[in-house]
Amino acid sequence: MSETPHHWIVTLVCDDRPGIVHAVTGAIVEAEGNITELQQFSSLGSGRFFLRLQTETHADHDALLAALQPVIDRYGAECRIDAVGRPLRTLVLVSKAGHCLNDLLFRQRSGTLPIEVPLVLGNHPDLGELAAFYGVPFASHPVTDAEQKAAMEARILAAVDEHDIELVVLARYMQIFSPELCAALAGRAINIHHSFLPGFKGANPYARAHARGVKLIGATAHFVTSDLDEGPIIEQNVTRVDHSRSPEELVVIGRDIESRTLSQAVRWFAEDRVLLDGQRTVIFT
Amino acid sequence: MSETPHHWIVTLVCDDRPGIVHAVTGAIVEAEGNITELQQFSSLGSGRFFLRLQTETHADHDALLAALQPVIDRYGAECRIDAVGRPLRTLVLVSKAGHCLNDLLFRQRSGTLPIEVPLVLGNHPDLGELAAFYGVPFASHPVTDAEQKAAMEARILAAVDEHDIELVVLARYMQIFSPELCAALAGRAINIHHSFLPGFKGANPYARAHARGVKLIGATAHFVTSDLDEGPIIEQNVTRVDHSRSPEELVVIGRDIESRTLSQAVRWFAEDRVLLDGQRTVIFT
Amino acid sequence: MSETPHHWIVTLVCDDRPGIVHAVTGAIVEAEGNITELQQFSSLGSGRFFLRLQTETHADHDALLAALQPVIDRYGAECRIDAVGRPLRTLVLVSKAGHCLNDLLFRQRSGTLPIEVPLVLGNHPDLGELAAFYGVPFASHPVTDAEQKAAMEARILAAVDEHDIELVVLARYMQIFSPELCAALAGRAINIHHSFLPGFKGANPYARAHARGVKLIGATAHFVTSDLDEGPIIEQNVTRVDHSRSPEELVVIGRDIESRTLSQAVRWFAEDRVLLDGQRTVIFT
Amino acid sequence: MSETPHHWIVTLVCDDRPGIVHAVTGAIVEAEGNITELQQFSSLGSGRFFLRLQTETHADHDALLAALQPVIDRYGAECRIDAVGRPLRTLVLVSKAGHCLNDLLFRQRSGTLPIEVPLVLGNHPDLGELAAFYGVPFASHPVTDAEQKAAMEARILAAVDEHDIELVVLARYMQIFSPELCAALAGRAINIHHSFLPGFKGANPYARAHARGVKLIGATAHFVTSDLDEGPIIEQNVTRVDHSRSPEELVVIGRDIESRTLSQAVRWFAEDRVLLDGQRTVIFT
Repeated sequence: MSETPHHWIVTLVCDDRPGIVHAVTGAIVEAEGNITELQQFSSLGSGRFFLRLQTETHADHDALLAALQPVIDRYGAECRIDAVGRPLRTLVLVSKAGHCLNDLLFRQRSGTLPIEVPLVLGNHPDLGELAAFYGVPFASHPVTDAEQKAAMEARILAAVDEHDIELVVLARYMQIFSPELCAALAGRAINIHHSFLPGFKGANPYARAHARGVKLIGATAHFVTSDLDEGPIIEQNVTRVDHSRSPEELVVIGRDIESRTLSQAVRWFAEDRVLLDGQRTVIFT
Repeated sequence: MSETPHHWIVTLVCDDRPGIVHAVTGAIVEAEGNITELQQFSSLGSGRFFLRLQTETHADHDALLAALQPVIDRYGAECRIDAVGRPLRTLVLVSKAGHCLNDLLFRQRSGTLPIEVPLVLGNHPDLGELAAFYGVPFASHPVTDAEQKAAMEARILAAVDEHDIELVVLARYMQIFSPELCAALAGRAINIHHSFLPGFKGANPYARAHARGVKLIGATAHFVTSDLDEGPIIEQNVTRVDHSRSPEELVVIGRDIESRTLSQAVRWFAEDRVLLDGQRTVIFT
Repeated sequence: MSETPHHWIVTLVCDDRPGIVHAVTGAIVEAEGNITELQQFSSLGSGRFFLRLQTETHADHDALLAALQPVIDRYGAECRIDAVGRPLRTLVLVSKAGHCLNDLLFRQRSGTLPIEVPLVLGNHPDLGELAAFYGVPFASHPVTDAEQKAAMEARILAAVDEHDIELVVLARYMQIFSPELCAALAGRAINIHHSFLPGFKGANPYARAHARGVKLIGATAHFVTSDLDEGPIIEQNVTRVDHSRSPEELVVIGRDIESRTLSQAVRWFAEDRVLLDGQRTVIFT
Repeated sequence: MSETPHHWIVTLVCDDRPGIVHAVTGAIVEAEGNITELQQFSSLGSGRFFLRLQTETHADHDALLAALQPVIDRYGAECRIDAVGRPLRTLVLVSKAGHCLNDLLFRQRSGTLPIEVPLVLGNHPDLGELAAFYGVPFASHPVTDAEQKAAMEARILAAVDEHDIELVVLARYMQIFSPELCAALAGRAINIHHSFLPGFKGANPYARAHARGVKLIGATAHFVTSDLDEGPIIEQNVTRVDHSRSPEELVVIGRDIESRTLSQAVRWFAEDRVLLDGQRTVIFT
């Protein structure tokens, strides 16, 4: 027990059975915690149960875990305990377009996005100056052939190890991960796709949206999987456009949606609000 | 205990103290209930705690209440137990404009709005035919002087008594309640105001919105209080307009927002999702 | 020249060349018309020019056409002259779900949708009562085999001829047109698809949207072509959903968007605001 | 006549009378211009006529003006001719909050906002580093008493003169202009107010929005007048919030809307799309 109270986030996922909420809240009572936020969801499709709560308590991490351990064991649950507001160690990957990186770093510095960014990696050097302004180390490696691509992926994995990275953000990184890299980063790599998925998967979505004559364009933040643009969706937004907009104007209009959508997804992930339910996500907002 | 399981909604409001969630869920466990939905909120402003859960159990209303009674007593809580899907007895008040009434009754008949409407009262006879189509009794009484106004209010209160009304909906009813009627129906009368409150309180909001040159117009569903258009807000929506729209066009465009916003507020109320926190509402969606 | 002024809509489409606006407005000046609304668009993709204007003038249809004829001839333009507010003769096709039909007919009767509906045809009898309430003739024909389907399509074409139909609206009509019927009604049949196209073309879009875990669901009003759900898009809308919504709830939530989107598309079409630019639409709102 | 074609914006405002569009487009034809965009609006309230067009022509500014001069004279019109894409000379005023400044400068540098910023003035020094990163001169002057306030206003006017400023942007500048400064900058100073006007005029709008329990918060970009927060509205946006958001969280959520709304208003102004119609604006988008 510590002098000043802690504010913990507890997430717990297991097969759905009666009594779980009571059991978990009992453990919180045992740890003399006050619950300040609690959300739960029973997925009919998968039969899985999801819970996220925040609790103020004098119990430290180990004491809280000890209180929860019998519940974890009884229900065969996956449980995670995290401190509210702890910055998530985040690696950001970029190419040339800087709007998403700028948005992430501006929010981070403003204190409204709980991440810390030990490194930005690019396949182009263009955004080094922007990273430098925010005091973030930057490195770039060209990726124009298979050998360079393999080197870049090794570099990414090395950075993940070195900096104990919890989340990799593809902030308009215009390279497709190999299946091996997808597997290595499963559940902890978020991409922003510049369309309202499942429409316009793959390349040049704005040009195709223009050709199809859609009246709304969008952006989708999703987990990276080896199935291109098919990973679980975290957040989506759209904005209205009309016939007078050229494909080039759609690109510019879309940047705002991309930035907002990606930052929102990263914030939710950093606050342990994103849980995986098969190909779907549970978002406790 | 009954043969087939019940699906109950439990709402509970009390001063915020540690252990409430555990105590409530313990009572649910005692009643052998499985929690299918649970939301809670601690209001920092008022120090009040709000909880809504849904539970499947063989316990009937009295058995569930008996299990919850010790918790209710210990925390001095207001508690309500309701059956999921039970239609709310609703009195609808109208004038001449039928869009909100049509929307409510169409949804009711489609099975997507859990209300039953034993009576529609109007201060004009115009909407009798619409009510008749939906098989709902209709009566109208002119309200053109103080005496008629008093008679109409007496009629409303009589109908509330006679039909055991749980909610009075002012579906573009263009009369202001007396303070006495406001008091009598406190917390169970919902009005739709045709502006985005607190902008354009009072009469002719669309004309005033046009004169002010706003770029979005809106509608607000709120509880009726004696302070005109100042009651707790339940739901608000807006839609974009531009300089080319006349005040008359704003009226037409606004109808859609009014209908949707009012129906949404009524659904939430009927599903026990609306709780009062002073001048604010807690909406568990 | 008539005593009271007319209010005309003029739409004109031709290959883009300098001077068209001046030529058209010159013809309006010649007809002593005052322009109250004017919009134009030059499509870079197709090289086509689109113009819509409204004009108040004492010239009748033939006099206005005579003034415009030299311009039409010089530019090889398609030109249409229509009276502002004239109700469009509209055939509505339905199956069992009534929300779109109810929305269209309620707006028509409220005077906010400039259509007249001489007939509603269904492949189920369910919506006859609703049509009757609005005083609209209704007929139903089962479509359960190829022969009945052919008979229904013949019935549709006969109704189009008999009532001089200008627009066929598929208001959640759950049958696919034959290529021949698509061809016969090209550019004057509007369907509402219950997804945000191009996502979830074809059957059961809400179930597939749920499985994919999208965070917004939508509806699309589009012209019917023989390429299923690939016709030019007129209007789209979306609404936010979260993980807790079942496929059945998505169906209910989606109805509002479907109704609004279809009615909006029909209004724009009835007001001559929808022009075809290849696979895209130009919407002058 | 020049070798390479120019792309001009022409805006024209006058009392509404028949024949204006024809007269203006005739002048464009005379200048051998091709019209690429044209919008008009007749204001019933004020009786004023508004037109904006874009034209490609070999005529230079003076030649185009010469062609338009007879029209200007005949209709007593105000007319402005501007080059498409010309950066608007913009003075930005700030206090401590950097989100709007960052948004404006990032867009400017990305080439998506046609402004040039010769100077940023602050009443606090905090944002000097941000301005420096974008290569924009920055100066700050404390404004804590009447004397300093007068000095700051003199500094603003001097900067407007020195840099031939066309637009002054109050990018969360937390000072109220004197009536004299309002008058001096009438029609060329844009403020971002952090509420959906006319709701929550004046100070601390988020705290008051929280207390009132609104379900949407917003931001409003408007012209500065001596009537606080009553100037003509250029753009408004809102976003959904719920009961669980604290006033502090509303502040953070609101920043996104403020940034977007202000940048949108500045872009429209820089593209000559914003015209004044009394207390209302005509926005040709």
